[in-house]
Amino acid sequence: MKLKVYVDRMSQPSRAILIFCKVNGIDFEEIKVDLSKRQHLTPEFADVNPMRQVPAIVEGRFKLFESHAILIYLACAYPGVADHWYPNDLFRRAKINSVLDWHHSNLRRGAVSLVQNTVLGPALGLRTSPQAAAEGEKILSASLAKIESFWLKGNGRFLLGSFQPSIADLSLVCEIMQLEVLDEKDFSRILGPYKKVQQWIEDTRNATRPHFDEIHSILFKAKVRFQKERSGGTNEPESSMKKGFLSKM
Amino acid sequence: MKLKVYVDRMSQPSRAILIFCKVNGIDFEEIKVDLSKRQHLTPEFADVNPMRQVPAIVEGRFKLFESHAILIYLACAYPGVADHWYPNDLFRRAKINSVLDWHHSNLRRGAVSLVQNTVLGPALGLRTSPQAAAEGEKILSASLAKIESFWLKGNGRFLLGSFQPSIADLSLVCEIMQLEVLDEKDFSRILGPYKKVQQWIEDTRNATRPHFDEIHSILFKAKVRFQKERSGGTNEPESSMKKGFLSKM
Repeated sequence: MKLKVYVDRMSQPSRAILIFCKVNGIDFEEIKVDLSKRQHLTPEFADVNPMRQVPAIVEGRFKLFESHAILIYLACAYPGVADHWYPNDLFRRAKINSVLDWHHSNLRRGAVSLVQNTVLGPALGLRTSPQAAAEGEKILSASLAKIESFWLKGNGRFLLGSFQPSIADLSLVCEIMQLEVLDEKDFSRILGPYKKVQQWIEDTRNATRPHFDEIHSILFKAKVRFQKERSGGTNEPESSMKKGFLSKM
Repeated sequence: MKLKVYVDRMSQPSRAILIFCKVNGIDFEEIKVDLSKRQHLTPEFADVNPMRQVPAIVEGRFKLFESHAILIYLACAYPGVADHWYPNDLFRRAKINSVLDWHHSNLRRGAVSLVQNTVLGPALGLRTSPQAAAEGEKILSASLAKIESFWLKGNGRFLLGSFQPSIADLSLVCEIMQLEVLDEKDFSRILGPYKKVQQWIEDTRNATRPHFDEIHSILFKAKVRFQKERSGGTNEPESSMKKGFLSKM
């Protein structure tokens, strides 16, 4: 009854699940569902997740989707997972649930809308909307400002002033990492003002290495590919290379 | 250290919290934050919830916002709450978390976008977008179809085939109840095809009466007001009165 994890590493919540499993020594089988080949739309995958989205898990007869629900389940079901990932303490757990709920309609909604309507949509041959991209950026920027000014308040380096990361840090940081595929100017304009956010991403990465870097390597390759396409299909990098988080890997 | 619950009964997640507290005999003080008077934007309320949204709770020094996080906290913190609301069983709890997470980007996103851009926006003097209303309806209809065909599968009357309601039933049903304020034709077009959804709303209402009806009475008054405004400010009802859920109250 080995845990099966259905993912595409190009999906940010998929990466969060993979990093969590690897950091916590959870034994699992990674099953790739290639979104670019529309494998999530096959009848076989509908049997795993009728919502046709990754990530999803299967453990014997038990099936589960939605990345936050999966992270919570894994943190509770596997005894080897350290308490800081999803504390038993009622009050700390409630605050982490609050961050996770907030994430859906704020950081995630904004980031997905922007990235889909600027980079991923054209790459996948989907129709995009400049208006949706602009609205996405607005929600994204407001969300980053709230993370900087509110969620990262306190003494610790992580969300809610914690000294060790929780599943909320992993989920939100993986979402922001997706911005790496943006054009350099967009990336700098959006992330530039938020120094605490930048440090927190680095801290979360350091707390989960080497798995964080390994799981994100696909994004680095995609970033290079998108840059090439933007510069007209040549092998030359953009005139002023983006100094993103991935450049440190 | 009595529980303080900051709500506006016109907000659907506020109603879910109030019904939950009343059904479970939780002693609390209801503090109205009148959204139409922009009381959620005051500095006093920012101290309760820096995101400036209802619902929020305060219990001594502990503050919490996001309705799902609040429902989970209350279900776990108050020993009088029956297990079916948020089961201790790891697998059943995981499935409820999955419904709650799914809700954010599907049913809630669609319903809020549609209602804001058709009824509530004009009533509050906010700018609306027909395109956003159309997109909202599309997401909403797809979400109702998934509830009908997937989440309401099984032997029981409630989500996930359960025989008693969980916090997910309460959250999702309160969201759908907000559609009562729509124009009759919109309401019928959207809800009409989903017979199991309609029965489930009635079952959830019956399982939480009389509190369900009492907490929703404000919506009934608002519905009548919006109908009058649509029919040109007269006291005449619309030519063909909407047969909504509230008409049974």
